[in-house]
Amino acid sequence: MRVYNFSAGPSTLPLNVLEKAREEFLDFAGTGMSVTEISHRDKAFEGVVKEAEALTRELLGVPDDYAVIFVQGGASTQFAAVPLNLMHGGKADYIVTGNFAKKAWQEGQIYGEANKIGDSSDKTYTYIPDVDKLQYTEGADYVHITSNNTIFGTRYIKFPECPAPLVADMSSEIFSREVDVSKFGVIYAGAQKNLAPAGVTIVIAKRELIQTPLKICPTMLKWKVQDENGSLYNTPPAFAIYMAGLVLKDLKARGGVKAVNEINEYKAGLLYDFIDNSALYKNNVERKYRSIMNVPFVTGDAELDAKFIAEAKKSGLVSLKGHRLVGGMRASIYNAMPVEGVKSLIEFMKKFEKENA
Amino acid sequence: MRVYNFSAGPSTLPLNVLEKAREEFLDFAGTGMSVTEISHRDKAFEGVVKEAEALTRELLGVPDDYAVIFVQGGASTQFAAVPLNLMHGGKADYIVTGNFAKKAWQEGQIYGEANKIGDSSDKTYTYIPDVDKLQYTEGADYVHITSNNTIFGTRYIKFPECPAPLVADMSSEIFSREVDVSKFGVIYAGAQKNLAPAGVTIVIAKRELIQTPLKICPTMLKWKVQDENGSLYNTPPAFAIYMAGLVLKDLKARGGVKAVNEINEYKAGLLYDFIDNSALYKNNVERKYRSIMNVPFVTGDAELDAKFIAEAKKSGLVSLKGHRLVGGMRASIYNAMPVEGVKSLIEFMKKFEKENA
Repeated sequence: MRVYNFSAGPSTLPLNVLEKAREEFLDFAGTGMSVTEISHRDKAFEGVVKEAEALTRELLGVPDDYAVIFVQGGASTQFAAVPLNLMHGGKADYIVTGNFAKKAWQEGQIYGEANKIGDSSDKTYTYIPDVDKLQYTEGADYVHITSNNTIFGTRYIKFPECPAPLVADMSSEIFSREVDVSKFGVIYAGAQKNLAPAGVTIVIAKRELIQTPLKICPTMLKWKVQDENGSLYNTPPAFAIYMAGLVLKDLKARGGVKAVNEINEYKAGLLYDFIDNSALYKNNVERKYRSIMNVPFVTGDAELDAKFIAEAKKSGLVSLKGHRLVGGMRASIYNAMPVEGVKSLIEFMKKFEKENA
Repeated sequence: MRVYNFSAGPSTLPLNVLEKAREEFLDFAGTGMSVTEISHRDKAFEGVVKEAEALTRELLGVPDDYAVIFVQGGASTQFAAVPLNLMHGGKADYIVTGNFAKKAWQEGQIYGEANKIGDSSDKTYTYIPDVDKLQYTEGADYVHITSNNTIFGTRYIKFPECPAPLVADMSSEIFSREVDVSKFGVIYAGAQKNLAPAGVTIVIAKRELIQTPLKICPTMLKWKVQDENGSLYNTPPAFAIYMAGLVLKDLKARGGVKAVNEINEYKAGLLYDFIDNSALYKNNVERKYRSIMNVPFVTGDAELDAKFIAEAKKSGLVSLKGHRLVGGMRASIYNAMPVEGVKSLIEFMKKFEKENA
């Protein structure tokens, strides 16, 4: 029986995409080969990469002077790639709004002066610092943010307007809401939340910014090299890109990012409303910064939380355990989580609250 | 209809592995989720990584003081990771026996003095330099080789006995023949030839060598970090590791590396014997260095080569085009290529030779 999977990533994928992949798993596009076996230089496969890129450009409205590349290593590898491609002046600004934002900042320190100009750790990352009050470093090469914080369940509602190029890790929200790509220098995202299985990372970068990576940058981490080779500098993570293409086709069929954003707001609204009106559950995030992708909540009693997670699993609602840094529960409700999944969760929460009043 | 796929990588996978993956694609291990959706922190998935590691240790006889890790980015990323983890003294030796060996050497030059102590480009990489006559650099941090050269169809028949740790890119032959891992400091391999779909890279490294990566090494490229986190420092390429596990289980069921090596020798022998006895086809590699994984051959007439490739494809023998640096044809006959595939190719070659005499 298919469960509702609330994992923060890898995470649930659209059922029709999984079924399509299974259907053609042994014979991709009539080639007599699995998509996991076909040469990345085969015409049939090159089309897969080109289509995933074209759909990304179309669905996010990526300007023509931006590269769209598919690479490996997850956002964590991009934490190094960002300074290695951009830190020419030796300094950059970071806004630390969670665990991954902090890791990106720490990685930046390997390569230069990485200034923390914003930090919400004083309230356990339950808010986003006011972007209108930030003091940017003169001559910084870029300003780095994490637009949605998977562990803590926050998101930016307004992006910084900074003198340096804005670099955003959008791993846990890319394709979930409309953004004006032209306001960013670089957007990157691990795919395993809204886009594909784990194993591929998307980078969208303004080309004029990426022409001179640092000398010590590994060739494979040079965005310019990946761009010039159409993401085929070496063997790409073929299956994950193929799956991304299927997910993006599905997203387009659902009406694109705007339509899905509305559904995401609706799903998150249902869940937050229920939590806010319940006596048992609590979400600690400052309301205006609440993520519509990751919804952490607690009962305030660790034993009861554990019981909740165990009983939910028995009801087919899985991976609801919160991150160890936060505890409690977390429901990740990405693009592929059906409205019915959220409603089922709420029904279960009601029942559990009643039984444990 | 399933074809025989002679691609150099990504390449053919065992049919039973593909069927198993398809069978459980929507419901992995009774979890109600696809293996492409499950959290990498889920107990069911952690077992997948541990099993792939355990099978690697067992099948290759990896000593306990070696790390076995699964990372991303292909061998090309390891070209940088090698110096970034090992080049403490600022110099290393490289033996350049082909295109990828050359790329590894060039990447090494980014980080220090990368000395080319062997080179077979004088005869278009059709041989391996005599390892008993190499002059190693005093105080080199390592000696780097490419044990099997995918494009040119050569392999080492004897490994260098050098004062510095030996580092080998075994991408196109890992698990195809027995090697004494204890003679190597580091072995690495992109998986997309003998192990799995593209998207995962295996690194086997003596732990005492990898404790102090260079300061500028990206965290994700630090083998020590990956080892300490059991390949789960960040979200791993889950599906590719899962597939690697299935391939290794299949390899074990086939009798392990020794048994498969015998079949590989047999398959390669059939093909080389046929080529050597034909009037039309020619393999230019010095016999003792011939690869048993990649068999390049030419007719000596580029137009006839093109005709061969096109007609072979119509007969269900695909991806036989040689690399652009060599031209002609190349049959990659990895572990998963059945004996019948090689026999079918030979039958076709006979027929084609007769028709084009």
